[in-house]
Amino acid sequence: MNQINYGLMQDSALTIPTLLEHAATNHPDTEVVARMLDGSLFRYNYKVLAERARKAANALSTLGVKYGDVVGTLAWNHHWHMECFYAIPGLGAVCHTINPRLFEEQIVYIINHAKNKILMLDQDFIELAERIVDQIPGIECFVILGAEGCVTAPTGLPNVLYYEDLIKNEPDTIQWPEFDERTASGLCYTSGTTGNPKGVLYSHRSTVLHSLAIAQPDNLSLSAHDCVMPVAPLYHAQSWGLPYGACMVGAKFILPGRQLDGPNLLELIRHEGVTTGCGVPTIWTMVLEHAENKNLDLGELQRLLIGGTALPTSMRDRFRAKGVSAVQIWGMTETSPMGTISRTNREVAQLDTEMLDRQLLKQGRLPYGVKMKIVLADGSRAKHDGETAGDIWVKGPWIANGYLHGDGGDMLDSEGYFPTGDVGHIDQYGFMKITDRSKDVIKSGGEWISSIDIEDIVTGHEAVSMAAVVAAYHNKWDERPILFITLKEGAVLDKTTMQDYLQDKIVKWWMPDDILIIDEMPMTATGKIRKLTLREQYWHHLMPE
Amino acid sequence: MNQINYGLMQDSALTIPTLLEHAATNHPDTEVVARMLDGSLFRYNYKVLAERARKAANALSTLGVKYGDVVGTLAWNHHWHMECFYAIPGLGAVCHTINPRLFEEQIVYIINHAKNKILMLDQDFIELAERIVDQIPGIECFVILGAEGCVTAPTGLPNVLYYEDLIKNEPDTIQWPEFDERTASGLCYTSGTTGNPKGVLYSHRSTVLHSLAIAQPDNLSLSAHDCVMPVAPLYHAQSWGLPYGACMVGAKFILPGRQLDGPNLLELIRHEGVTTGCGVPTIWTMVLEHAENKNLDLGELQRLLIGGTALPTSMRDRFRAKGVSAVQIWGMTETSPMGTISRTNREVAQLDTEMLDRQLLKQGRLPYGVKMKIVLADGSRAKHDGETAGDIWVKGPWIANGYLHGDGGDMLDSEGYFPTGDVGHIDQYGFMKITDRSKDVIKSGGEWISSIDIEDIVTGHEAVSMAAVVAAYHNKWDERPILFITLKEGAVLDKTTMQDYLQDKIVKWWMPDDILIIDEMPMTATGKIRKLTLREQYWHHLMPE
Repeated sequence: MNQINYGLMQDSALTIPTLLEHAATNHPDTEVVARMLDGSLFRYNYKVLAERARKAANALSTLGVKYGDVVGTLAWNHHWHMECFYAIPGLGAVCHTINPRLFEEQIVYIINHAKNKILMLDQDFIELAERIVDQIPGIECFVILGAEGCVTAPTGLPNVLYYEDLIKNEPDTIQWPEFDERTASGLCYTSGTTGNPKGVLYSHRSTVLHSLAIAQPDNLSLSAHDCVMPVAPLYHAQSWGLPYGACMVGAKFILPGRQLDGPNLLELIRHEGVTTGCGVPTIWTMVLEHAENKNLDLGELQRLLIGGTALPTSMRDRFRAKGVSAVQIWGMTETSPMGTISRTNREVAQLDTEMLDRQLLKQGRLPYGVKMKIVLADGSRAKHDGETAGDIWVKGPWIANGYLHGDGGDMLDSEGYFPTGDVGHIDQYGFMKITDRSKDVIKSGGEWISSIDIEDIVTGHEAVSMAAVVAAYHNKWDERPILFITLKEGAVLDKTTMQDYLQDKIVKWWMPDDILIIDEMPMTATGKIRKLTLREQYWHHLMPE
Repeated sequence: MNQINYGLMQDSALTIPTLLEHAATNHPDTEVVARMLDGSLFRYNYKVLAERARKAANALSTLGVKYGDVVGTLAWNHHWHMECFYAIPGLGAVCHTINPRLFEEQIVYIINHAKNKILMLDQDFIELAERIVDQIPGIECFVILGAEGCVTAPTGLPNVLYYEDLIKNEPDTIQWPEFDERTASGLCYTSGTTGNPKGVLYSHRSTVLHSLAIAQPDNLSLSAHDCVMPVAPLYHAQSWGLPYGACMVGAKFILPGRQLDGPNLLELIRHEGVTTGCGVPTIWTMVLEHAENKNLDLGELQRLLIGGTALPTSMRDRFRAKGVSAVQIWGMTETSPMGTISRTNREVAQLDTEMLDRQLLKQGRLPYGVKMKIVLADGSRAKHDGETAGDIWVKGPWIANGYLHGDGGDMLDSEGYFPTGDVGHIDQYGFMKITDRSKDVIKSGGEWISSIDIEDIVTGHEAVSMAAVVAAYHNKWDERPILFITLKEGAVLDKTTMQDYLQDKIVKWWMPDDILIIDEMPMTATGKIRKLTLREQYWHHLMPE
């Protein structure tokens, strides 16, 4: 036999229990801290987390949960939810993190669509469950995260069990079942602005590879010396994979609970020694404002990974003044979520300060594992000139190949790339910049106007709280931008002042045709501005009456 | 259908070409620098490396190299060898890196044992090839790494081709073939002190996972801002995986060629901005001595990964005085090679300086992916008390499950662990310390004496160049240690002085029964002291004449 086929390396499967057991064995004393629903702090370590996750797996197994079953969670960021992240996939079952901020009919839809068998829920969501219980007949039992007596026994739910009582007498050891690393581990629905939510189904393999990737020095840079606090909820793309990445490196882990306000988060940052945080800009702006108002430092905080939407320049600068590096990361539920991250490389590091600052506001460069292409309307690929924008497609081992039960149809193109729905360009340094969501693009006289760029500038104005630029129909230019603004408490601003402010900051033909100060922005369940509502409502705003 | 099986994530294979293409696309301008055989520097970048590797793959394909074939290399650390590291496995073939320092009969043996089809060789090794050509009839052609005319055409070899001429007219694009990520990619024989060398066969999967692991902040910490110089030869466990890890993160890469002496290496460190080096202590001691003698700084050097043997305390301290962190890493060809690394965790970081210093001289803690157990003579597991030593077994996706063609038989135990042949213990912090190779253990009166510990202390003496402690037969205690020393040039030392020096540094019963100053240590092909020779020669040294 002349030929050699496979290498002679051990065939260890990349599964989620290996992350847990690594932390339990190698970082047993490292703390995991959770803010409880009553505001108090709960504190244990990886050794106990692992013991409890094994107990929970044994309990779920006793309840009949087996390979391929789906267990739903309706919970905030705390240790119970973290334990579910290991106990459920450890059995080869799927942990379906349900976003409680979805519309109720959507929650009903996804529980049934994913055929959830058990629902693990916080006491906060008992009333919600009671309202929908008749519409989710597939749920065999409701497990309340707490001990019996933590709430008045719910009268509206059948088969109620209590997590603490369930696991109490279970052994804290387990022989984790063996299965293929491509086995599904987690399920997270995306809340599109139209149609039903679609399910993204992570695997053990994608989760472990994503963890290995985010930990790299040029990505999230996770180490045993870090203290990581994900403010992104565990039901948002698995909190960006941090519950898994933290175990992999043995980082101290902070679960901030329900109350994601400035004072609560800042207290955790300062008292627990948080080095690394993640989340959407709005949350971190609250932290910043609280710190600035009270003249408090940010403790040992080193870096913030900012995703969900663009990192506002002003926010970056204010954090920098406090010694914290706010880093833009781009991704989506379908990308686990790391797609790009805005960290310097050798060439970019040599730019002058002003250029560098601008460069790092882009969505960033590709980590090993992610491939990207920008496709123009004619199907050709855009040049990497930092200008030519097109549809962004991505490919890699932690990127979705489709949605649960085939929703949305075949998603990949002939080269195996997934459509992100974002529009952007790539520059000579390999940095990608999102110019818009494809559905938010404003096409004026055949040219694209980036709503995101205008919004970033507007948000830099001291009076502005939130800004949204959407397209309105125009009988000459097809579409023209109109700008919506909500103001900070007590702030005053009028249309003319904003026009003057924008005058020398954007090209003339980008100037919004109207500027409207509104009381409240319509928001999505994931905390983004629901532009679709504005666009529908104001589509004829620029037409003669 | 209630059940979900696999996740809906893309099935991207973890193959070596993905590393190369990642660097070519995302870090095209980052430099790769090689010290040529004539001492000059060759310089290109990842874009050109990738183009040339694709050309070489096309050329090898034309020569008939296909999936499962084995191509041998006899070469130093330079860009040609690096290109082989991508071109050969990129085709699904196996890159067999032959250690030119093996005995000639061993080289013949492994070329035939692995059924090499083509041999890629440096001009330095033409004479070697000419001497053995009749004994390696399976070699279809010899490819000299250079252009025609770089050497006088060898008369003793049939079918000689020249690398540069071979690739010259090949296209620099390729459609890399698709294959299972468990496909063999690299082959490296271990030179045991007894018996024939045994082949360790890496896979694409093990290589990529190992790269993802070494890049982590707590491991080798590789970033696009680093400049990495592996001084470990490419034929030693693939230079510790650095040719692959560097591409993954886009680090600048320095291949130091053949002349691994202090002045040559220091020049590269200082002029190319090396931040990260790796290798055995002897090489780095030469660099250090040259720097100290010439009063030169070490440029931007930040960290040295020291493996192969224990990091001497004195060497660590001298590097520290120059602002460089020398980090102990442990592994072997069979572990790709990262097994453990001596980086602090939260608990260890809190030790006082003296304790911490001692702690970090241990072989270190486990990265995610490696599991380890210490097994005692009765088959039970040792307590992690930092004292109880036993046989070290390891498990993980970049650890061998056996040797080529089944040599050595079934290697794994019933739990899937691989025997390392090292003896050591693990402490309460999870840090492993090697006390000996199992074959070097000295068993005196039923207790183990660590040859390695004594050697480390002896090497700290200013007069000592190398030290080896081996067992000699003793009619009362079964075995007793004897110490062999070679001296630094011009240094003077006698037995009594060394005894006095050791007096308060080791426990009394560890004191060697004899101390012999010798002119030269017997060395293995991988640069380690061949203790077996000393032991055989001096086994009866302590017996009455």
